[in-house]
Amino acid sequence: MQAELHRLSMAHPGDVSALAALLDSQTIDARSICAIIGKTEGNGGVNDFTRGYFTDRLMSLLERHLNEPAEMLAQRIPCVLSGGTEGVLSPHYTVLCRTSSEACSTAPSLAIGTAFSEPTDHAMIGTKAHAASIADAVRMAILDAGIEDGDDVHFVQVKTPCLTSARIAALQAAGITPPASSAGHSMARARAAGAMGVAIGLGEMTAADVHDDMLLGDFGAYCSRASISSGVEVGCNEVIVLGNSARWSGTLAIAHRPMQDAIDLNSIHDVLGDLGLPVVRQIAGAERERIRCVLVKAEPDRHGAIRGQRHTMLNDIDIDPQRHIRGAVGGLVAGVIGDTRIFVSGGAEHQGPDGGGLIAVIAERAALTELTGE
Amino acid sequence: MQAELHRLSMAHPGDVSALAALLDSQTIDARSICAIIGKTEGNGGVNDFTRGYFTDRLMSLLERHLNEPAEMLAQRIPCVLSGGTEGVLSPHYTVLCRTSSEACSTAPSLAIGTAFSEPTDHAMIGTKAHAASIADAVRMAILDAGIEDGDDVHFVQVKTPCLTSARIAALQAAGITPPASSAGHSMARARAAGAMGVAIGLGEMTAADVHDDMLLGDFGAYCSRASISSGVEVGCNEVIVLGNSARWSGTLAIAHRPMQDAIDLNSIHDVLGDLGLPVVRQIAGAERERIRCVLVKAEPDRHGAIRGQRHTMLNDIDIDPQRHIRGAVGGLVAGVIGDTRIFVSGGAEHQGPDGGGLIAVIAERAALTELTGE
Amino acid sequence: MQAELHRLSMAHPGDVSALAALLDSQTIDARSICAIIGKTEGNGGVNDFTRGYFTDRLMSLLERHLNEPAEMLAQRIPCVLSGGTEGVLSPHYTVLCRTSSEACSTAPSLAIGTAFSEPTDHAMIGTKAHAASIADAVRMAILDAGIEDGDDVHFVQVKTPCLTSARIAALQAAGITPPASSAGHSMARARAAGAMGVAIGLGEMTAADVHDDMLLGDFGAYCSRASISSGVEVGCNEVIVLGNSARWSGTLAIAHRPMQDAIDLNSIHDVLGDLGLPVVRQIAGAERERIRCVLVKAEPDRHGAIRGQRHTMLNDIDIDPQRHIRGAVGGLVAGVIGDTRIFVSGGAEHQGPDGGGLIAVIAERAALTELTGE
Amino acid sequence: MQAELHRLSMAHPGDVSALAALLDSQTIDARSICAIIGKTEGNGGVNDFTRGYFTDRLMSLLERHLNEPAEMLAQRIPCVLSGGTEGVLSPHYTVLCRTSSEACSTAPSLAIGTAFSEPTDHAMIGTKAHAASIADAVRMAILDAGIEDGDDVHFVQVKTPCLTSARIAALQAAGITPPASSAGHSMARARAAGAMGVAIGLGEMTAADVHDDMLLGDFGAYCSRASISSGVEVGCNEVIVLGNSARWSGTLAIAHRPMQDAIDLNSIHDVLGDLGLPVVRQIAGAERERIRCVLVKAEPDRHGAIRGQRHTMLNDIDIDPQRHIRGAVGGLVAGVIGDTRIFVSGGAEHQGPDGGGLIAVIAERAALTELTGE
Repeated sequence: MQAELHRLSMAHPGDVSALAALLDSQTIDARSICAIIGKTEGNGGVNDFTRGYFTDRLMSLLERHLNEPAEMLAQRIPCVLSGGTEGVLSPHYTVLCRTSSEACSTAPSLAIGTAFSEPTDHAMIGTKAHAASIADAVRMAILDAGIEDGDDVHFVQVKTPCLTSARIAALQAAGITPPASSAGHSMARARAAGAMGVAIGLGEMTAADVHDDMLLGDFGAYCSRASISSGVEVGCNEVIVLGNSARWSGTLAIAHRPMQDAIDLNSIHDVLGDLGLPVVRQIAGAERERIRCVLVKAEPDRHGAIRGQRHTMLNDIDIDPQRHIRGAVGGLVAGVIGDTRIFVSGGAEHQGPDGGGLIAVIAERAALTELTGE
Repeated sequence: MQAELHRLSMAHPGDVSALAALLDSQTIDARSICAIIGKTEGNGGVNDFTRGYFTDRLMSLLERHLNEPAEMLAQRIPCVLSGGTEGVLSPHYTVLCRTSSEACSTAPSLAIGTAFSEPTDHAMIGTKAHAASIADAVRMAILDAGIEDGDDVHFVQVKTPCLTSARIAALQAAGITPPASSAGHSMARARAAGAMGVAIGLGEMTAADVHDDMLLGDFGAYCSRASISSGVEVGCNEVIVLGNSARWSGTLAIAHRPMQDAIDLNSIHDVLGDLGLPVVRQIAGAERERIRCVLVKAEPDRHGAIRGQRHTMLNDIDIDPQRHIRGAVGGLVAGVIGDTRIFVSGGAEHQGPDGGGLIAVIAERAALTELTGE
Repeated sequence: MQAELHRLSMAHPGDVSALAALLDSQTIDARSICAIIGKTEGNGGVNDFTRGYFTDRLMSLLERHLNEPAEMLAQRIPCVLSGGTEGVLSPHYTVLCRTSSEACSTAPSLAIGTAFSEPTDHAMIGTKAHAASIADAVRMAILDAGIEDGDDVHFVQVKTPCLTSARIAALQAAGITPPASSAGHSMARARAAGAMGVAIGLGEMTAADVHDDMLLGDFGAYCSRASISSGVEVGCNEVIVLGNSARWSGTLAIAHRPMQDAIDLNSIHDVLGDLGLPVVRQIAGAERERIRCVLVKAEPDRHGAIRGQRHTMLNDIDIDPQRHIRGAVGGLVAGVIGDTRIFVSGGAEHQGPDGGGLIAVIAERAALTELTGE
Repeated sequence: MQAELHRLSMAHPGDVSALAALLDSQTIDARSICAIIGKTEGNGGVNDFTRGYFTDRLMSLLERHLNEPAEMLAQRIPCVLSGGTEGVLSPHYTVLCRTSSEACSTAPSLAIGTAFSEPTDHAMIGTKAHAASIADAVRMAILDAGIEDGDDVHFVQVKTPCLTSARIAALQAAGITPPASSAGHSMARARAAGAMGVAIGLGEMTAADVHDDMLLGDFGAYCSRASISSGVEVGCNEVIVLGNSARWSGTLAIAHRPMQDAIDLNSIHDVLGDLGLPVVRQIAGAERERIRCVLVKAEPDRHGAIRGQRHTMLNDIDIDPQRHIRGAVGGLVAGVIGDTRIFVSGGAEHQGPDGGGLIAVIAERAALTELTGE
């Protein structure tokens, strides 16, 4: 197997013309597409419809190329979009493909796996049972990726359902105490359960370690390889696992690092160093071209200060805190990389250190690395 | 003479308690205060009243300590506030003081000069005549700073008036063609005139080089040491000049660099390098403590792209473009410095390269530097 | 001919299920649909993609029912969406249908006409020539509606192109002075030209009365029956004419009134009175059910005051002025009607009195009215 | 006693010049000022500093006229400001004065009373004990107003403290379970307790009727004469009571009505009818001049629909829901009154019917009314 990535720009959230062109020119075989991860230019909140618009157009495009109904495709190809291109961030999407290859890699190469669980029971959303069900899906996706050691996984993207007012009312009507008081609360709890689920699936924790009151309660418990989104539009746990595997060939590899806070420059230096890209000044030229995908989770510090200095993100009713943090962290990462096509997503509860988050980078391994068979 | 800087935090825009404490403890002599530069947590737009609120409180505090009416103080002590602490930025203000000192410095030290011009004629706002009048005030402030060579100036902050609808109507009634069509247009033209005025005052250009249609027309003409704000609340040109001078003693020095675009990491490395602070990883420990004030101007690229990738700042009607850019550039600079108390101001027309801006840093010179008398 | 209206709700901007159900149940014959007018829940600005999303879904739905490519449908069925459901406003769309009917009406009934012009020459956008070309399209739509007297027209909706940065550059490259300095400026000029074009088409003015400098210059010139939107997504002038005609049967009728300012309650009383719906308290019961469509244009007073009291809409950089005005005027109209499904659109230059706008209402004529043949 | 009202405009949130002029001309005796109620042009949220700015300037002005420190004045003269002049609303403030008068009124006249409680114990904020303490302050203010019958009270404004993160932590450290999970939650609970407190103070309920879980739990329990604001800046319960009393002279009277929902036009007709101002068309001329103060509380329906039609206020992360509702309800009330100087405040939990709110109007009684001694 071999992973191929195509990072494409969009002129607006309904624009899938760049992918259409690659499909038309047969540069990409539609059958090889196994996942999409991207940034659209909405506000990133409940009323951000740019994600739905793009997904709609994308699935229609694939429907035409695969002769499979869009509704079916949406149930087997994860399309993960984060709304909000604040500051310098550029709307774009990365198409992850999986091709068969006879080549033998001289080093472990990027491996991709996906999984869709059974529909999630509403009564368990945002509980330790939810975490356990996500752990199962993560294990399935690791298997799908052909990765043998959980330590070789560097990034796990999960989309998982949340409760809504209507679902909460239905649970109450059925005599069940709902595990969250509102849709917003449920989304946060579902993300927390997702992070714990990834931790279990990767063997960082056991299911027995997770308790309901840890979720949004004990932020010392976190997973630096988990990126979770929760929304009403999904009905089950959708998982994308990215790691390195000797079973895969190709020149791509992935690395990740936790970010200690929103200005943790050193984590960016470190993850690039892991990939043989030392940061002396801004990454440039051939080194910049080696960087193919940058994935970041971040969050405004919930205590209202960074390195002891007050920030104002949490009390601003004009700009959503997540819009603030994406803009700031996006500016920092783009500055180091020299490229504004960065996936930065907010809502990072238990996904990396509290007040920080994580960064994962996919890059082509250096020629030298390959030659030496390192 | 010797310059002293006090970088102080505020709990809200009406909070001057940190300065009050330093005045009460006689750590600062109120008579030594010659300028204030700070960031308040408003939106940075026309309807940002945090600047006025803070100035009001500050001048009341100084009135009590100096027995001089607040209105008079406001006409001799420039108080430059930039609204908007987007992302990680922290509300703070730097009090610039000027004390007499017998000490001899082993190297040129930070020098501060200020000037207030005569009231500005409304008919000239945003024209080459306005630029010329600002150049005069810049020269006065350089003289006040005791700087002999214009090349030793590293940062010039100007506050200058703009037209309003009422003023435009008054000009028209007087048979004069107003030099701008609206208040917003006039503010931009006034900033442009200010940048040209600083360029003339510093000897980068001559008054004859400047034409009215260059202003907001030829963005190839710019000054990387000019930081201009324009507003209805000022009646004349207020200028703060910061440079290095052998006539001044103390351990502080200033450097500056143009920023080529909003993600120009190398300019930050360079300006810190100029001050003997090489960036290997995030600046930390004793080196971070040497950094006393960071001043940045930035602007969303007016062509809608950064390094060829589309940005969405200019078309977002939910978040003002200047709020976007301050958050992104603030995140980048704070990440390198390891400190979120950064002055980042938007509206950077002709103040540094188009689509970029400038950065100036005041830091204590390294002990070694002083010993070697470098 | 007979006009039928279906006012439908949407759960989100991609939701056309209400229309799909009516098509599936054959309540609506897809071939009868001649126009759609609606409100989506975006921000109403350049970066509002809810309009494109809804149009996309709508045209896909009609494509399935009419076996005609969506692209072709978009060129013959005007779909006019206004983004922004501020305050109490509810996302909805009205489907305007045209059916053949043998019935004879006892009174003039609602008549609908549409027209699409040839592609608009970019060099003329926002000029008197643009106005003249729109007037031609208005006359075609009046003809299409079978209305004989221009005075019987009560509402003309126009969608027309605007310039973009790229188009402005192309004109300059071709040696043509562009008729606007920016995309935003061009949109406003195009709306102004549209209003003048409707005035000419309706015989309120002659083409000779219109001069380029009247557009955005003389707000005393206006048309109280013109509702104009301008956008990059259209290539020609699209027109919907609504009026009353003795050639049409059915129980619907339309009336309109100018609004003198944003709180002109009396205009609402008057337009409802025109339709036999006197306002004593909130319209209720059977009378409310008679009201089938409410169309409003409004604008923040450009002088910053309403009835001598300052408003703050124009200087708020957190909320767009058009979002402010839609919310306020929507609240007023919804309060009188007792229904929040109101089409309120901003950008009302020359569309009704300056600082005000216009209101048009489609309602079923009262039974009594028909009996008396009034 | 006689009540006098002065409704004054402000050019910006630091502008108290209108009051200063009336004090200088001795039109107002500073000693007669007993309360201020106004609207400033901030965002109305936690980070709205326009309220603090205005209060600061106001108290400084009164300090100069009363020779009493501003800090002391703030503890005996309630200054209630609501941020947010969305849509057509105009920034203004009403100065409530109390003068002695020998005149005998022919009818009950506007009566004003105020009260400040002891500092509020943090452990009780947002509980039934808090409600009971507010009820005590309400009774004191009724006594101060000289109103004998609680039914003669028409509007009670309360400012009361809330918990903050720091206060919650302090309670936990002291082994006390805090009555709210966050500052925002505490503000809402404090407003709920305030509404119940007013209901008790007015005799609509008894303290025994109120249970902790009613607060934000049972929205069927409400008070249509309670207007509550909660904030970190107050330390005790501050109360303003407005009613009618035969002990007071003058021509002013107050009336109030509950609003059933955000488009309840009839409530506005009714409250004006109560004051002898029947609404046929927009109130105009001499009748409009009789209206001296309009006070409104409103809230977005928490179930997401008004009269069965979906609204989008609660899910919009670009505009705060309270900003939405103020703009819409302000537009409606201003349209009926013909004046945009309306006090509209959000956060109306238990203050009027759920999803609605209340309206109170102070007007001069008609001459005829007085003559007939009605």
